[in-house]
Amino acid sequence: MTDSRPFALHRQLAADCHRLGDLPVSQLLLMDDSRYPWCILVPRHNGLEGLHDLPPAQRAGLLDEISRVSRAILELCGSERINVGALGNLVPQLHVHVVGRRVGDAAWPGPVWGFEAREPYAPGQAVRLGAGLWRRLSTAAPAPRQ
Amino acid sequence: MTDSRPFALHRQLAADCHRLGDLPVSQLLLMDDSRYPWCILVPRHNGLEGLHDLPPAQRAGLLDEISRVSRAILELCGSERINVGALGNLVPQLHVHVVGRRVGDAAWPGPVWGFEAREPYAPGQAVRLGAGLWRRLSTAAPAPRQ
Repeated sequence: MTDSRPFALHRQLAADCHRLGDLPVSQLLLMDDSRYPWCILVPRHNGLEGLHDLPPAQRAGLLDEISRVSRAILELCGSERINVGALGNLVPQLHVHVVGRRVGDAAWPGPVWGFEAREPYAPGQAVRLGAGLWRRLSTAAPAPRQ
Repeated sequence: MTDSRPFALHRQLAADCHRLGDLPVSQLLLMDDSRYPWCILVPRHNGLEGLHDLPPAQRAGLLDEISRVSRAILELCGSERINVGALGNLVPQLHVHVVGRRVGDAAWPGPVWGFEAREPYAPGQAVRLGAGLWRRLSTAAPAPRQ
């Protein structure tokens, strides 16, 4: 169920992530973990817990945003794969992970979720990565409609 | 890149799963693992590796199918959460996991991917679950457009 209160980010996401800005459907976060380029998209509606709770009119928009963030990570970070996940076992607010992976990275080939403790970015590093991602998202043309 | 050859399911998915049938965008599989109700949606296009490779015209359809399968699992299996993931670290063909989770299940609260060895269903058990899921998917009205 959605409600009409202003969107509020779950405190755990707020504590673990840098806020990069708003896309049309979701707020874009960068997980403060230097082991992988790890973005999180949080649709800006209170009360959503699963992808199936998202209003149908916004599903295509969210998948567009997942695709744009995936491409930005691939281009900027040289990742080899993208892992996308919506789990919510620990933080119930609907949020979608978009993580750049490389063969041999810390958790490879397993999933990143729950894999040992995160390693925060050095000062300035997250700001530079966030700016680079945002610049690509701002300038990238939306994917062509077919 | 997609190609025009008939759709071919990756042999690892074929080996690990039961095929339940085709939805408009994807082939629906049931992972042969009795620890969780675990479906996999495989868009029927060769050569897709990530969600961002999916033609935009089919993105909304795939998310509709993820939502329908999520609801079918929640209703039929009494799951408390749904975990959705598109990883592809081991099997490159694009496939989306839709997994029903319960507090205290084998891998809780961690992800199911890579968590110990799967436990195949007893004879008949997978058939019954697959039939129940398919019955719900066949009769469920598509989610209303907003």
